[in-house]
Amino acid sequence: MKLLIVGGSGTIGKKVTSYFSDTNEVITAGRTSGDITVDISDSNSIKKMFEQTGKLDAIICIAGESKWADFHELSEEDYYIGLKSKLMGQVNLVRIGQNYLHPNGSITLSTGILADDPVVGSTSAAMVNGALHSFIPAVVLEIKNGIRVNAVSLGMVEDSYEKYAESFPGHHPIPMNKVVNAYSRSVNGRGNGEIIKIYS
Amino acid sequence: MKLLIVGGSGTIGKKVTSYFSDTNEVITAGRTSGDITVDISDSNSIKKMFEQTGKLDAIICIAGESKWADFHELSEEDYYIGLKSKLMGQVNLVRIGQNYLHPNGSITLSTGILADDPVVGSTSAAMVNGALHSFIPAVVLEIKNGIRVNAVSLGMVEDSYEKYAESFPGHHPIPMNKVVNAYSRSVNGRGNGEIIKIYS
Repeated sequence: MKLLIVGGSGTIGKKVTSYFSDTNEVITAGRTSGDITVDISDSNSIKKMFEQTGKLDAIICIAGESKWADFHELSEEDYYIGLKSKLMGQVNLVRIGQNYLHPNGSITLSTGILADDPVVGSTSAAMVNGALHSFIPAVVLEIKNGIRVNAVSLGMVEDSYEKYAESFPGHHPIPMNKVVNAYSRSVNGRGNGEIIKIYS
Repeated sequence: MKLLIVGGSGTIGKKVTSYFSDTNEVITAGRTSGDITVDISDSNSIKKMFEQTGKLDAIICIAGESKWADFHELSEEDYYIGLKSKLMGQVNLVRIGQNYLHPNGSITLSTGILADDPVVGSTSAAMVNGALHSFIPAVVLEIKNGIRVNAVSLGMVEDSYEKYAESFPGHHPIPMNKVVNAYSRSVNGRGNGEIIKIYS
């Protein structure tokens, strides 16, 4: 298979890239690193990326940001960081990327546990994840050419434990092999419209 | 109690307004009708509305639009209609409205069944509803002064049956007394961070 992994150099992305690279042709993209540079909050940048990749069998996105802050400190504009990047960035990857997939190709987005189990400071991040959890079952009613769309929704992962443990009190870190398996399940399985939740 | 009902003149709003008016002081607001004119997609318009209402015991929002269309016809801009109006409009009602509530006041937002059970043409509407279903459990971790925040998530309601039946094949219309009860439960109960789902 020919795969594109957006965010292939991040904490999770590099493990997922390493896994798929063993037996597939993998192209990575990222804001500052990877084979192709892309800013997913800009749909023109997404279009340029796909013009460089050509036709693909699978697209994985492990990218997109949102602003973390206390609810009383988040401005209206702060919410739009997440809406433009992690939400509409990934929606635009589906909107544009569908035209660059072979029939029966797949798109795997990334969300997270905050959609179902928020923590302090996560009103914006939770919102964006929840939006995608409802977008995905809706889009698979309409998308054509047998294209599948799923999301992997992770809890705090083992490799981010030091960075995020304080923000996720009592959360048990997810082993990285479970993380990789979730992306494998979406790409190599036949599930469609699934939110693959790995919360423990 | 002194209540503000945004969207108090709509199909659902007028039933809810009628119910609460029996024993409470109700102020209605809407884009083109009601005691106060407001455009919830504009946070300045929301601020002006609350300057006119003064302190309240409860805020109910039954307003906010999103664009319905086939996934292949929805533009990126079309998605922002729902993100600015039904999503951020209601988030801004919480952000701004919390300052106009007495301690232990309540805010009730409106979402819908598409978050959990989408239909064709609803990728944008589903997304917005899902975003609010995750925002609400997140915001109640942080909001102060005992303020409660819930959403009422309705299926297709009886009074909209003729207009929407074709878009919701096989959905059973929700009786209007169940609709009114859901808003009563949020305002008059003690539930907090709840998504009150009335799907049948």
